[in-house]
Amino acid sequence: MEELYEELQSLALQKQYKALKERLGDMAYPDIAEFIMQLDNDQTRATVFRVLSKDSSADVFSYLDSDSQEAIVRLITDREIEQLMDDMYVDDAVDFLEEVPANVVRRVLANTDKETREIINRFLEYPDNSAGSVMTIEMVELHDRLTVGEAIKSIRRTGVDKETIYTCYVIDDKRHLVGTLPLRRLLLNEEDVKLTDIMADDEQLITVQTLDDQEEVAAVAKKYDLLSVPVVDKEQRLVGIITIDDIVDIIDEEATEDFEKMALLRPSEDEYLKTNVFVLAKNRIVWLLILMVSATFTGQIIEGFEAKLATIAGLTACIPMLMDTGGNSGNQVSTLIIRGLALGEIRIKDYFRVLWKEIRVSVMVGVTLAVANALRMVLVRLITGSDTSNSVILVVCLSVCAAVMVAKVIGCTLPIIAKLLRLDPALMAGPMITTLVDAVSLLIYFGFANALIH
Amino acid sequence: MEELYEELQSLALQKQYKALKERLGDMAYPDIAEFIMQLDNDQTRATVFRVLSKDSSADVFSYLDSDSQEAIVRLITDREIEQLMDDMYVDDAVDFLEEVPANVVRRVLANTDKETREIINRFLEYPDNSAGSVMTIEMVELHDRLTVGEAIKSIRRTGVDKETIYTCYVIDDKRHLVGTLPLRRLLLNEEDVKLTDIMADDEQLITVQTLDDQEEVAAVAKKYDLLSVPVVDKEQRLVGIITIDDIVDIIDEEATEDFEKMALLRPSEDEYLKTNVFVLAKNRIVWLLILMVSATFTGQIIEGFEAKLATIAGLTACIPMLMDTGGNSGNQVSTLIIRGLALGEIRIKDYFRVLWKEIRVSVMVGVTLAVANALRMVLVRLITGSDTSNSVILVVCLSVCAAVMVAKVIGCTLPIIAKLLRLDPALMAGPMITTLVDAVSLLIYFGFANALIH
Repeated sequence: MEELYEELQSLALQKQYKALKERLGDMAYPDIAEFIMQLDNDQTRATVFRVLSKDSSADVFSYLDSDSQEAIVRLITDREIEQLMDDMYVDDAVDFLEEVPANVVRRVLANTDKETREIINRFLEYPDNSAGSVMTIEMVELHDRLTVGEAIKSIRRTGVDKETIYTCYVIDDKRHLVGTLPLRRLLLNEEDVKLTDIMADDEQLITVQTLDDQEEVAAVAKKYDLLSVPVVDKEQRLVGIITIDDIVDIIDEEATEDFEKMALLRPSEDEYLKTNVFVLAKNRIVWLLILMVSATFTGQIIEGFEAKLATIAGLTACIPMLMDTGGNSGNQVSTLIIRGLALGEIRIKDYFRVLWKEIRVSVMVGVTLAVANALRMVLVRLITGSDTSNSVILVVCLSVCAAVMVAKVIGCTLPIIAKLLRLDPALMAGPMITTLVDAVSLLIYFGFANALIH
Repeated sequence: MEELYEELQSLALQKQYKALKERLGDMAYPDIAEFIMQLDNDQTRATVFRVLSKDSSADVFSYLDSDSQEAIVRLITDREIEQLMDDMYVDDAVDFLEEVPANVVRRVLANTDKETREIINRFLEYPDNSAGSVMTIEMVELHDRLTVGEAIKSIRRTGVDKETIYTCYVIDDKRHLVGTLPLRRLLLNEEDVKLTDIMADDEQLITVQTLDDQEEVAAVAKKYDLLSVPVVDKEQRLVGIITIDDIVDIIDEEATEDFEKMALLRPSEDEYLKTNVFVLAKNRIVWLLILMVSATFTGQIIEGFEAKLATIAGLTACIPMLMDTGGNSGNQVSTLIIRGLALGEIRIKDYFRVLWKEIRVSVMVGVTLAVANALRMVLVRLITGSDTSNSVILVVCLSVCAAVMVAKVIGCTLPIIAKLLRLDPALMAGPMITTLVDAVSLLIYFGFANALIH
């Protein structure tokens, strides 16, 4: 690709616009967008964008990142903006306007026809990540009185402006959604069949509401393998659709959000490289601060035990190993449970099955680690000639085993409690598990030490 | 849903099959499958499955989990198996056969016609997670000599058996893929237009090879917003397609795999609740053991410093806080970088941009945490009346700041090194970051302590 991009760039710089236009005409829109984005000069970006054929410019524009979109819009004429807004799908236009500064939004809206402007303004008001905020309105609507032949004719007439024509939506006189109809079923039926006889209705009619979270939309699309999900208002009137390409983006976004939450980050919608350092720092400090303050507890536990730690060789040295092992064990389970909850593979009512599984797993893991640790400590003692006593080794092994078991139980319980309380498992579980497991591991350790070492 | 399922179940138990069939006929396939899966008796599952209309049984079967599939296949006749295999898409049949015991596979294949059996056997040989292993062969192929009208006629004749008809593939006499054609473009063109005049070819022809990893397939589908990705062999002959519903599953699977790797788990393809405890334990022990052994280093570092820890109050108590803060900081960055690499938002060549960002972020985060920590320690000293000295507080604060900075640099560097070495960033970064950051944080801590406390 890079060679091709260099070639295209030199065409642009040499002002060989006709040759450039021809080459771009052979390329897929995402590749043209990629080429424009990697240009380092805004003027060149705008020049290349202007070379694009009228058919492709709105599509290519939708694939650009917001920086390039903004740069181009600043450099093209009002007339070109009007044309662009006219050709873009509403969802892409809204995506673009959500990311650029207010003065650009004003200029763009001033050059948009009244009807589109009103629609866009309505869309901009839907809450972030709601179905309404990601839907588009360019869907195929078919009246429930039509036959298959009439429907196909209507699609051929109006389909060119629709974001997808592969699922058609059947509405009644009052725009209520009464059924869905895959284009495939239309094509495979005879011309005189009535739509109402072949459409999916009743229990098969899958819809979401404008204020539903995008995560639910993705779950519905995945469960029913839909190419687009219809969005209805409270009166079941069809107001938009969400297409599978946007659903794929939502799935990625939601997974990224969970990754971020579990790594103790405030989730951010922007790509890493495009986020400025103050925002990055802010997103990270919150949880680090909270956890640092909560480490006061572990500090206090250790201080209460400092006298013993000071007198018994080898006891302090094992604290990091014990805490890491406990923390890692807890994390392993909580990750599995959080992901299982997110994908709908685990439900709250499965808790006792999960717990019983984890108890058995933790015994196996705990005992294995304890035995391995005994070997390790004896070996280290042999090699370094340190004076770690057998009772210290026993205490450490018992503590490792117990810490793993407690960590597993905490790790599988907290995410499910979060879900039960309608909190976000990914957000709540990570930080709480670290704090709890740290404190409990130390208490177990010192408990065993007090009981077994005199 | 649950009420509905109970109602349906009692219909089944009362042998009211006609009423049951009618009710099931109104339901979407994934819901019927969900109903069958939550039944607790294999016999009832098979009974309900047999009630399904011939049209829907293969579709419903594809939505079942492998336990239910196996249970049903064990209870239906050879004749019914033959019918089922005949109606199922190849990719669904392969998915099913990959998960059930060998004796079930043998019986199923013995009741499959020779041609299908050969295809399935070939598919079962593709490596796990390759494009070949997830593709299907029920695609619309159009000869490059056809016109739009002829193509539509051909689709109407053969489309009912295809997994998707929305993207058609244009092939030449030797089955080479020469172009793709969305059904939409077919429908919106005149009947006498030739396919070769409107199909996407040349640079716009996006394909994957049978042995390509499924992750690449998903990346291609996402980039180009494809509803299906064509799979070709080395001679560019069309051998199958991968449809968007399977791509959505791949995206989820790949994210789950990264979650598991980052939580120090051996990735598993099975759902948590369906994995037995031995496998769960095995998947977890590996990394816990490795990290426990590598904790020998931190242990040694602490042992070398035990004398000083024993004499200076408050020094030991801060070890957990310091290690957690370092570990968490490192994890925050590595998660962002690993996810960015996985989504293609960050590339190897961006390393210096990333590093420079992280250095600035880490200064801000480090200084903030150090100041907050000073306040915290002074406050704790006031409240508890402990004898932590000012120099200990200074050492801890300096160490926190330095540990955060080092952790951030390590956290952004390791994943990119892994990528550079063609290793898996998610697999390599997690464990190594913990070990490295732990050791370095302690060395920094004791270094400052040695220098500043006498």
